[in-house]
Amino acid sequence: MAKIKAAILGFGTVGQGIYQVINEKREDLKKSLGLDIEISAILVNNLSKVRPETPGVLITDDFEDIINIPGLQVVFEGIVNEEPAYSYLCRAIDKGCHVITANKVMFSKYSIPLQERAKSRGVFIGYEATTAGGVPVIKTLKNLLQVNTVEKIQGILNGTSNYILTQMRLNECQFEDALKEAQELGYAEADPYNDVSGKDAFYKLMILSALAFGKQPNWNDVKIIGIDDITLEDVKKAKKEGLRYRHVAEIVQDEDGELYASVGPQLVGSDHPLYAIDGVNNAVSLDTNYIGTLTLVGPGAGSLPTASVMVEDYAEIIGKRAGFFITI
Amino acid sequence: MAKIKAAILGFGTVGQGIYQVINEKREDLKKSLGLDIEISAILVNNLSKVRPETPGVLITDDFEDIINIPGLQVVFEGIVNEEPAYSYLCRAIDKGCHVITANKVMFSKYSIPLQERAKSRGVFIGYEATTAGGVPVIKTLKNLLQVNTVEKIQGILNGTSNYILTQMRLNECQFEDALKEAQELGYAEADPYNDVSGKDAFYKLMILSALAFGKQPNWNDVKIIGIDDITLEDVKKAKKEGLRYRHVAEIVQDEDGELYASVGPQLVGSDHPLYAIDGVNNAVSLDTNYIGTLTLVGPGAGSLPTASVMVEDYAEIIGKRAGFFITI
Repeated sequence: MAKIKAAILGFGTVGQGIYQVINEKREDLKKSLGLDIEISAILVNNLSKVRPETPGVLITDDFEDIINIPGLQVVFEGIVNEEPAYSYLCRAIDKGCHVITANKVMFSKYSIPLQERAKSRGVFIGYEATTAGGVPVIKTLKNLLQVNTVEKIQGILNGTSNYILTQMRLNECQFEDALKEAQELGYAEADPYNDVSGKDAFYKLMILSALAFGKQPNWNDVKIIGIDDITLEDVKKAKKEGLRYRHVAEIVQDEDGELYASVGPQLVGSDHPLYAIDGVNNAVSLDTNYIGTLTLVGPGAGSLPTASVMVEDYAEIIGKRAGFFITI
Repeated sequence: MAKIKAAILGFGTVGQGIYQVINEKREDLKKSLGLDIEISAILVNNLSKVRPETPGVLITDDFEDIINIPGLQVVFEGIVNEEPAYSYLCRAIDKGCHVITANKVMFSKYSIPLQERAKSRGVFIGYEATTAGGVPVIKTLKNLLQVNTVEKIQGILNGTSNYILTQMRLNECQFEDALKEAQELGYAEADPYNDVSGKDAFYKLMILSALAFGKQPNWNDVKIIGIDDITLEDVKKAKKEGLRYRHVAEIVQDEDGELYASVGPQLVGSDHPLYAIDGVNNAVSLDTNYIGTLTLVGPGAGSLPTASVMVEDYAEIIGKRAGFFITI
């Protein structure tokens, strides 16, 4: 049976998840795709760090070792930040590799040029994991867009912010206490800036914009407000009125094709599709012309949910390239 | 540009929606698929009935006129009940046509043999519209199953029942009054038996079972309870306790591979994924091994939502057959 050689860039939470899921599902993937997959190499930052065992896999801190693997066909990327991730993926694409990324910071900025580059080389980019973790909003949107026009997208795209707002309401605690709890549970980073400032949700919204509308608004025109100014008093007042604070990333296209995007707290009532989304969940609500409003809810982060949708991307890309059509 | 010839079987709510959506999206589909589509013929029950104009389309009440169209490649089916729908689709498949169906009664019983038949002829069956209308649960499940194992499915699969339960709670009205309102709004049929008895939800659950587990439980072993025994007093009592009645179709696979399915009212608390689903919406919650719980919510019926997902099925089947891979 032919074998697909793959590499993983970055071996943190996401990279380790990919390695685990591929190993656990290798036999099933063989059956469904008719092709085997082998993780040939993993790129790490620090060779001396202790990490899970990966027998037979080249572990290197030099990207040249990866890109020069003869016959490499797929690169999974789970690095943080724009660079060197973007340069690595450009080189992988130029070499004819399919790339599957979870890197929202990089992809929010480069989704359009990177996809054009991939198209010109005849390879594909999987990026389901960049937005809303295990919630398959990218695939759902791609399918919808074959027939529907999207008019508006509203999402809870940062689980940490949503967890904090949920705890403030349920336990009537201060922002700082809820944040501390989120950090203790591993939901929030030691530096929670990207999460609570709205920056993280903004990146994901820009990825959805590029897909749904084929373009993004001018980044400087997007008002981004975090949740750190919401007080316990605000939350209590809202609760009394039957309302809830949700941190909503939102984008609308008007009749002239202009995009209007914002990220910030909104007070929503019980008839709003995001009212019921509690805890670390993410949710995306899509307003479309034929179907109406469709809402997807699920885990927005985590090693295995993220890895799982990346391996789904792999199965989709390889399955289609090999001329398969999985009907089950 | 090559042209795909298609026929529509049945010209009620669903059939008319398909005709409308295909005509509105024909130019877009040409661009994305590189192939034109033409509705060559429509099968109707009663030729003398007044219906929307369909210039240039053969309108017939004889299936032989349809099946003998030279070069027919796609059949959209929007008929109700098992027969003659099943026989028609078998003949279309045997002739090498792809079929796209919205017929849950037929497909719940014949999903497995019909798919085997299609496979042996090298054609495909689109059946997104059979289950939860505009909510893309079939495509989402197919994707998930490439990597994930589904452990449990819970769904609100009948919008009429959910609307009635919602109105009973919100307006504190009797079952009969809520049903009458649903009928006046066109949500419920004149004969509401299939909706309120749980039968309709049962059919959809069996379709999900065949997809998620590759088999169905013995139909006679599935307990099906409707909502017609729920009184206003029950609903009020639940409301006081912070609970809600939901009509839940549920299936679980145990460790030995045995399936346990049921359809009936459940009292759920605010932490349940179906607690917040009000009105005519449908929702499906999928418990999977890697991703965790994923919930999809949206319109479970209606002409355009249903037609839209059927035309998405068309785009998927034709796009893949033509070797396209829509990246957008």
